[in-house]
Amino acid sequence: MTRVVMHGCNGHMGRVITDICAADADVEIVAGVDKFKGIDNSYPVYDSIAEVKEDFDAIIDFSNVAAIDGLLDYCVANNKPVILCTTGLTDDMLKHVDEACKSVPVLRSANMSLGINTLFDLCKKATQVFADAGFDIEIVEKHHNQKLDAPSGTALALADACNEALNNEYEYCYGRADRREKRPVKEIGISAVRGGNIVGEHEVIFAGLDEVITIKHTAYSKSVFAKGAVEAAKYIVGQPAGLYDMKKVISNK
Amino acid sequence: MTRVVMHGCNGHMGRVITDICAADADVEIVAGVDKFKGIDNSYPVYDSIAEVKEDFDAIIDFSNVAAIDGLLDYCVANNKPVILCTTGLTDDMLKHVDEACKSVPVLRSANMSLGINTLFDLCKKATQVFADAGFDIEIVEKHHNQKLDAPSGTALALADACNEALNNEYEYCYGRADRREKRPVKEIGISAVRGGNIVGEHEVIFAGLDEVITIKHTAYSKSVFAKGAVEAAKYIVGQPAGLYDMKKVISNK
Amino acid sequence: MTRVVMHGCNGHMGRVITDICAADADVEIVAGVDKFKGIDNSYPVYDSIAEVKEDFDAIIDFSNVAAIDGLLDYCVANNKPVILCTTGLTDDMLKHVDEACKSVPVLRSANMSLGINTLFDLCKKATQVFADAGFDIEIVEKHHNQKLDAPSGTALALADACNEALNNEYEYCYGRADRREKRPVKEIGISAVRGGNIVGEHEVIFAGLDEVITIKHTAYSKSVFAKGAVEAAKYIVGQPAGLYDMKKVISNK
Amino acid sequence: MTRVVMHGCNGHMGRVITDICAADADVEIVAGVDKFKGIDNSYPVYDSIAEVKEDFDAIIDFSNVAAIDGLLDYCVANNKPVILCTTGLTDDMLKHVDEACKSVPVLRSANMSLGINTLFDLCKKATQVFADAGFDIEIVEKHHNQKLDAPSGTALALADACNEALNNEYEYCYGRADRREKRPVKEIGISAVRGGNIVGEHEVIFAGLDEVITIKHTAYSKSVFAKGAVEAAKYIVGQPAGLYDMKKVISNK
Repeated sequence: MTRVVMHGCNGHMGRVITDICAADADVEIVAGVDKFKGIDNSYPVYDSIAEVKEDFDAIIDFSNVAAIDGLLDYCVANNKPVILCTTGLTDDMLKHVDEACKSVPVLRSANMSLGINTLFDLCKKATQVFADAGFDIEIVEKHHNQKLDAPSGTALALADACNEALNNEYEYCYGRADRREKRPVKEIGISAVRGGNIVGEHEVIFAGLDEVITIKHTAYSKSVFAKGAVEAAKYIVGQPAGLYDMKKVISNK
Repeated sequence: MTRVVMHGCNGHMGRVITDICAADADVEIVAGVDKFKGIDNSYPVYDSIAEVKEDFDAIIDFSNVAAIDGLLDYCVANNKPVILCTTGLTDDMLKHVDEACKSVPVLRSANMSLGINTLFDLCKKATQVFADAGFDIEIVEKHHNQKLDAPSGTALALADACNEALNNEYEYCYGRADRREKRPVKEIGISAVRGGNIVGEHEVIFAGLDEVITIKHTAYSKSVFAKGAVEAAKYIVGQPAGLYDMKKVISNK
Repeated sequence: MTRVVMHGCNGHMGRVITDICAADADVEIVAGVDKFKGIDNSYPVYDSIAEVKEDFDAIIDFSNVAAIDGLLDYCVANNKPVILCTTGLTDDMLKHVDEACKSVPVLRSANMSLGINTLFDLCKKATQVFADAGFDIEIVEKHHNQKLDAPSGTALALADACNEALNNEYEYCYGRADRREKRPVKEIGISAVRGGNIVGEHEVIFAGLDEVITIKHTAYSKSVFAKGAVEAAKYIVGQPAGLYDMKKVISNK
Repeated sequence: MTRVVMHGCNGHMGRVITDICAADADVEIVAGVDKFKGIDNSYPVYDSIAEVKEDFDAIIDFSNVAAIDGLLDYCVANNKPVILCTTGLTDDMLKHVDEACKSVPVLRSANMSLGINTLFDLCKKATQVFADAGFDIEIVEKHHNQKLDAPSGTALALADACNEALNNEYEYCYGRADRREKRPVKEIGISAVRGGNIVGEHEVIFAGLDEVITIKHTAYSKSVFAKGAVEAAKYIVGQPAGLYDMKKVISNK
């Protein structure tokens, strides 16, 4: 049983994580930290991490940048591991993270979703097998019509993961309408579909001779990140000091 | 029972049509025409259409351009309807077709596949409903890595079919990597995936608020055209003179 | 511009409809009815429909069964059309609906989603074309792991829609593991996948010779019903008295 | 450069393998064995393996059971590795295989497709990650309407591969229509879709909280097995005596 302090417990992600932990016998939130108190929490909620009286094993953080420095100092002083999910950290805060992880385990990841992080692993493995056998790799991602950038950062990271297994020799192609030629072999096509309020879909296609393998991830809400944070908390307890990411949580399985 | 002469009976498509007709109680090939005779046909095979002795209702043609003028003359002289599937006709031949269809029914279509032609109808119907309700339309097509053009002609024709139901007010977008903006409302995105030896896949996506409708066609071999030709032959018998296409065969159902 | 009273405006669906109308220039909520007042509404909210002072064109109802009889009486007395989305009506209430629609237009539908209702139409049209050409029809639906029934009511309704176009001659097959035989021609297979918290996915497959057409609906949240209700409100204004369903809204397009 | 003898070179699979090798710079067919000689081969063709004069590194066998015993004896006597793709071997032949692989490398696999064999690996890896995080596993397979058994042997093998990573604690469910209950946690649902002439599609679904990962294999023709056999031939040269399967070829990458 992993005992967790939920740092930022009454924000959107804090509440989603609370629900997930309530349904998971292997983890329990023993206290929360939030300035906002309007919610009927099933655990005591404090204004700051320093006030927490309960004994616990790890901290999950989905708060805001203003609280990060204080949180890191607390972790080092009290020898507590932390899952750091707040985004938008300044360079100084990132240096603070680097410093803190010399003393305690800190997990921080670009994407906390268990599914997306596993997708990276599966695609790397598949690339090693299929590229050598002459399969072409293509990526199709779908997002809502308000998204500004294309392709998505995750699609690019997936292409990078495949390309890494290809000695980074492949070029990325974002559209084929302006050329008239056969597909170059050392190319990864990346298509971006935009429509409605699609949360996020990533499809990596390995197309060979008479067979196609597709590995696809569909997100139905942003709460997929919450699940990853809980798995990370279970993992981090008992680990040595250092900087961890979700890949380590997954490869541990 | 529709009695058919298979013009070009020993080519690839002729043999596929022969198999389809053998399994269909409503149609019978009573004779074939082909210069090549190496195959053990279940019906008499002649060197030219003029030599056919059997009584029949319609001709299916999958031969080659050299035979087209003679075929059209025969149809007019003998008052026989014809399903014209040979491609690459010259302008003079197309004029010949226009002339012939004043006397006899001639069916000629860009795509003989029943599935693709129905896809057009379904997409038009869906566009009428969904565009008005604020859904975005996107098309993803997938083809083999030897295909020169992108997007496919069929993908463009699908976009046109949707756009027709939108007063042709929508622009087509073939790639989004070079811009950084929300998706314009009056846009149809068309993505082209290339890989392996994929025969052809077309997917039209209608993405709305919390729901997505997808209409998708997958071709597993070029013989899908054969099935369409047989349906066309059943349809054409008894029709008045004129130029027909697959849409008429389908809307007749 | 359609002016709407939102009956049950502060429930989950009422709030979703409020958001949709705020973003739609062709419709405006001029008043709401709800006993609960905790929300900062952009329109006046009354305890009952009888108290509404604003002039309006139609009522959208997502309230609860206790309010239905009063609502129907009001509609008849004041000659107002109503979109009735509350479910679980008793037999007596259904008789009340039948009585009311002699005087005013009442729209009531098993599924208010524009997408699902269009799916019915598309599948009927596709069945007419494909079944005659020897295609097999299969349905795969996916729902969350808490759903008790299988297959879903919507999957069965989709099978019925196809079967109607087949003179109701086809049998439904819910699993093939206990037999060892070729697929009977006059069969519609219905498979039910259960997992995670999938909201709802319905896929109708038309499989022919070397081609497959798939028509698929994915719901990302229950608010898809809200969008349908707003389209229905726009449609109902100016219609003669009678009982309507979503199919009429869609076929009107 | 791997020099191969194609045993059964003029059968369907032998010809497909010939085409694949012609396009692959790392492998060459130096001789073929087939009683049937009607084809214009690009290499000498002999009546039996014993007659082959060319020097070579490995044998690919897609012949028939009558030739297997002779082939195995030849391999042992001449110290040649063999890729054994002929199916339907008798128990006595299987014993002969066990005997032969004490002296030479013999590769034999239930499914020679590189894609399907990789699918097994990917599914095992995914199961290890996702099952522990509470994801549900479901399999949907699609095959042609003439297939007698359901679910397919490959679908069952995929379920077994997942179950192995779950201590074989999960039950398989082939249909849910006859029960009315929430999905049991320790269950793998397997749905079999049948229609048209679909060659084979296998989809393994991992459904979690707000995210779904799908790993899917689509076969477009039976020649996918040919590609696997060629990769196996490249692999087997230089290996010690023993019994190998496709998994070893893939994990070697």
